[in-house]
Formats: sequence, structure tokens, C-alpha cells
Amino acid sequence: MPVIVSHDVLLGFSANVFVATGAARVEAAAVAEHLVTASAMGYDTHGVMRIPQYVEDVGKGMIKPGAPMTIEHREGATILVDCGWNFGQVGGNFAIDAAIEHARLHRTATAVVKSCNHAGRLGAYTTRAAEQGFLAIGFCNSPIHGHFVSPWGGRQGRLATNPISFAMPSGGEHPVVADFSTAEASEGAIRLHRNRGMNLPDGWITGSSGEPSNDPSAFYGPPRGAIRPFGGNRGYRGFALAMLVEVMGGLLGGSPVSKKLPGNGLGFIVIDPSAFVAEDQFPVMMAELCAYIKSSETAPGFDEVFVPGELDYRTRRERMRDGIPIDENTWAQILSAAESVGVNERIAV
Amino acid sequence: MPVIVSHDVLLGFSANVFVATGAARVEAAAVAEHLVTASAMGYDTHGVMRIPQYVEDVGKGMIKPGAPMTIEHREGATILVDCGWNFGQVGGNFAIDAAIEHARLHRTATAVVKSCNHAGRLGAYTTRAAEQGFLAIGFCNSPIHGHFVSPWGGRQGRLATNPISFAMPSGGEHPVVADFSTAEASEGAIRLHRNRGMNLPDGWITGSSGEPSNDPSAFYGPPRGAIRPFGGNRGYRGFALAMLVEVMGGLLGGSPVSKKLPGNGLGFIVIDPSAFVAEDQFPVMMAELCAYIKSSETAPGFDEVFVPGELDYRTRRERMRDGIPIDENTWAQILSAAESVGVNERIAV
Repeated sequence: MPVIVSHDVLLGFSANVFVATGAARVEAAAVAEHLVTASAMGYDTHGVMRIPQYVEDVGKGMIKPGAPMTIEHREGATILVDCGWNFGQVGGNFAIDAAIEHARLHRTATAVVKSCNHAGRLGAYTTRAAEQGFLAIGFCNSPIHGHFVSPWGGRQGRLATNPISFAMPSGGEHPVVADFSTAEASEGAIRLHRNRGMNLPDGWITGSSGEPSNDPSAFYGPPRGAIRPFGGNRGYRGFALAMLVEVMGGLLGGSPVSKKLPGNGLGFIVIDPSAFVAEDQFPVMMAELCAYIKSSETAPGFDEVFVPGELDYRTRRERMRDGIPIDENTWAQILSAAESVGVNERIAV
Repeated sequence: MPVIVSHDVLLGFSANVFVATGAARVEAAAVAEHLVTASAMGYDTHGVMRIPQYVEDVGKGMIKPGAPMTIEHREGATILVDCGWNFGQVGGNFAIDAAIEHARLHRTATAVVKSCNHAGRLGAYTTRAAEQGFLAIGFCNSPIHGHFVSPWGGRQGRLATNPISFAMPSGGEHPVVADFSTAEASEGAIRLHRNRGMNLPDGWITGSSGEPSNDPSAFYGPPRGAIRPFGGNRGYRGFALAMLVEVMGGLLGGSPVSKKLPGNGLGFIVIDPSAFVAEDQFPVMMAELCAYIKSSETAPGFDEVFVPGELDYRTRRERMRDGIPIDENTWAQILSAAESVGVNERIAV
């Protein structure tokens, strides 16, 4: 049975934990807000289950609470942000906010970050821009999390699951937000199947000889297998997108693919639609586009056609009302991490 | 048996045809160069088989040879280009060149086009930027070519096969170039299967009730079926990308989804890598990235791992040496279109 924790309680508790690690209240609150929102939206792998990891990373000196953000280089409509190995969310928020300010000035801007820890849910940053009326595209590479994903035609991992995200105003209550991996599956999802003794769906992985497999242990080896790039028989498209992410998040930040840095590399492109169409016209056109897409009759097995992000906002609404479910093991790990930094709050669950 | 035409002969002949439709020599040559390069690279559907269509469109007054290109609006690092319904390639080249010039000034630029006819191979434009050292992302929507692609969970077509492309310097002989549809298949590929009496591969289409089908006639109906978005069981990702293309190529150009304009809408994002990393460093990092990807041992059934675009350049090299194969029907249509505008050259084939 999962533990159910109220959104607001979880938010306050998480912020207290990050304050206890040495973060200023405002930065602790930002990290907590990011993780709790991810959990509320159903992105459990990018939510509060990361608290123990972050506490541990602070202990190891990998995350440096309070480290200043700097704009290392600014040239035309581009900025290079150094996140100083503060929490990844502090860096990511700073970078997208700087890109938004830059886009107010230049109508479009490109920002790349370096020295950024685990940044969490990529869509949080593009959403931040969309909520202010911008269209944003985000890229996130992961040098350290393992090059698990095989290139098209190959059988050895060469890039990480490198997600891509974009968001824009919908003309309705919430932005349109897409946020997805460029691989068929995450390593976490494969591990979950292994831990539960389940076979994998078709098409997720290949074993070390490159043969398709449904057995999680064929991925872990040794010898190690690989995760297939997104796109099935057209996986060359998914791997191409993964390369774009690697360049936008890694190479442009000055990190060659061979440099196994911790954390994530982020890249953002922000565009002001009002540079192209009248400010009041874009939301109207977006609302029409969304309504037109949703007006399609449903396919068998579906009750409704959703635009990207719509289900996440629905989940968030439900969980903000009913509480956020957290599995017992994860909850025990979170409490233990909190205690390790002296936070012993009794949480009503 | 296909006809084999030498690259240079085809180039001169095609340019003569467009001159005969009323285009200035320099614009005719640009359209010819675009189509012949597409044919040389193996993109036959975007190559010289388009000559009859373009000749016909000039005759109907849809393509206006010689129409001036204008930058309708310029604000910060953004430009809105009006292609005046000239040949789509004249418009596309003008727009990407303007975006490149703008990116030289602002280090990044976003360009959107309107009033653009069929633009051909999207990758040609991103490649043009990459050949000058830039990273470029391109988007191309198709209001008129039919909304064949169903949204995730839906069974009725709501967007076109909206391709996306990106290109960047590789540090080697040719840029890295990706160029792909956001749908599982093109309408042209489905028509080809129908004409040959062949079944479709799994996953391409659904019939009018939304049921998967391998029968091309289930797509054509009536009632009409739909093409599935790219990504198989994760087709929500492909359709999300199609929406991004619709916004970048259509909405930002002032065309709501309900406006069934002819031609294509284009959007380009151009980024100067040297705004972020030293000018001589980026190609070195790209060469390392490409070599690393290609160093993966191959999967069963593959002889080599290719980076995006590599196979296209190989095909072009072969066809420039050996000639470009064109099927007999297409060749007859091209000669007939040429004759219709008074071009009666005898082509050695």
C-alpha cells in the first residue's frame, strides 16, 4: 500500500530537508516545488524519490547548495550559464529565466548550461516559459547516467536516454507540454521489470549480441546489452534526436561526449510568438488547434483525445486534491534521508 | 527499366524547363539544383518527379516565377519572410540565408515563412546552414496536402506528415543531416503499395473505425482512414512533434490550422556554435561524437553504423558518378511537361 501525503505537507517537508542540507530557503523551496510538482503530475521517477539522492550528493560535495549562478558568456541572443554545481533545479530555473529575459529583448534566445546537477523533469523549464507566453524547446543530456542507448544499426550503448521537451501557451488553462525520452525505455523502467520478475515489452532492448530480447538480464549482462532508440523500425529518427540533444545540452556547453561529467547538460531555445503574430492572436490560434485535434473521434480503447501535457495536469489536479501516493520503500528512504540531516518531522500520512 | 540520366545533364535540362516557365536563370537554376540533388541523394519523391507538378502550378498561376521575396517583419533576432508564392525553393533558400545572416549578427535567429509553395526536401535548407558552420533546425507543415495523420488516441486525420530536420557541421566531409516525417508513413508510400497490389507493413495506418490495417484501401476509403503518427506504441511523441511543426511552420506564419493554404509553411532556428564554444573546438567535438557513434559494433543485419545523412551523401556520390535512375513513367511525364513549355531538348539517356 502506498503512503498518501498531502501536496502542501510534502512541499513544506521537502523544503525543510533541503534547507537542512545547507540551501537557502528560497532555493530549497524551488527544488522542493520542482520535485513535488513532478510527483503530483505522475512523473514519480523525477519526483520526491530523488530526495535521498540529492541529500547524498550534497554529503559527497557533488551538489553545492548556495553556489552562485553566473552567466559565463553573453553574445547577441545567446547565453552560456554556469550553474556552479548548485542543485540542478536552481540552475535550470536560472537558465530558463535568463533565456526568457533574453527573449524579451531579442524576441528569441538560446541558452546552454554547464556544471549543472540532476535537473529533474525537463518539462518544468519549458513550461515556465510557456506560462509567460513563450514557445520553448528544451534538451537534456546525461553524460554520467550511462550510454545505454544503441545507435541505429549498432548494438552498443552510445548515448543516454536524452529527453527533449517543448511547451507553448494553449490558449486554455494550461500550456501544451511535451516531454519525452529519445529512447524506447528508461533504465529505471527496465530495473523495475527485473525487480518484479517481469518480462519486458517487445522492442525495448537488445542483448549483447544485438538480438532483440524481453529478458531484463539480457540488458544488464555482463556482457551489457543496450536500450533501443525511440521509434521501433524507424529508430534512426529517435537516435538522430538523441544526437541533437547531445549537441544542444553537451557539446555547446563545452563538454565533449568523452567527458563523463556528473549531472545534466541543458539547452533551451525560447521564441516569443508575438514577434511573428499579434499578441492576442497566437492563443486564439492555439486554442483552435487544440480543439481541432481533440475533436477527432477516438480510436478503439481510448475515451478521449488528449493534447500533450493534458493528462499530466489532470493527474496533478487529482493528486493536489486527494494527496500524492508514494510507495512504502521510497517513503522510508525519504524519511531516512531527512533524519540524516536532522529533519525529524512527524508527517501525517 | 529505369532511365539513367547524368547529373549534369539533368541539372541543365531542369533549369531550362524552369526558365521556360518564366523564371530568371538564377532562380530556375536554384530550383533545378534542389530537385536534382534530392534525386541524387535518393529522395526520389522530393526530386525531379516534381517538375511536372511545378510546371502545372505555374500554368495555374499558383507558382509565380520572379515574385519578389520580402522580409515582412524583423524584430530582434527574428524574421518573418514573405515568399510571394514564387517557387518554394526560392523562398526556402531566401529564408534560410536571411536566418543565417541574422544569426551572424545575433548568434542565433528564428525565421518563419509565409506564402511559400512546395518547398521540397526540408534537409536542403538546414544543410545550407550547416555548410556555413551553423546548427539549424527546420520545420515544414503542409496545410493543403491533407490532414492524414491521426492524433494519439484518435482515428481521424488532424495534421499532415509534417517533417522536421536538423543539420550541423560534422567535423568531416559532410554535415550531419537528419530529415524525417513525424508520421509512420507518407501518403505517397501508401499509394505506391496500393498501385503495386501490396499489403502495407504493420503499424502504418488505421481504417475508418480506428482498427489497425495492412490494406491500403482501408486508408483511402471511403470512409477515409488515417496514417498513424511516428513512434508505434509511443506515437503520442510523434504527434507532439507534428504539433510543434504545425506551430513553427504554420501558426507563427499567421496561418491558423483551419486555413487551407497551398504550399508549405517553414520555420527555421539557426544557432552559431561559436557563440558557445571556440570556433575551432566545435568541429573537433562533432568529429569525436560521430566517430564514437560509428565505433559501436553492429547489430545483426547491419554492416556499418551510420550517422544521420551519411547514407544520403554516399548515394549522391554514386549517382553523380553513375547517373540518376528515373522510372520510365516519371521520365515520360517530365519530358511531356518540358514539351508543354517548349523545351524539346534531346536528352541522352
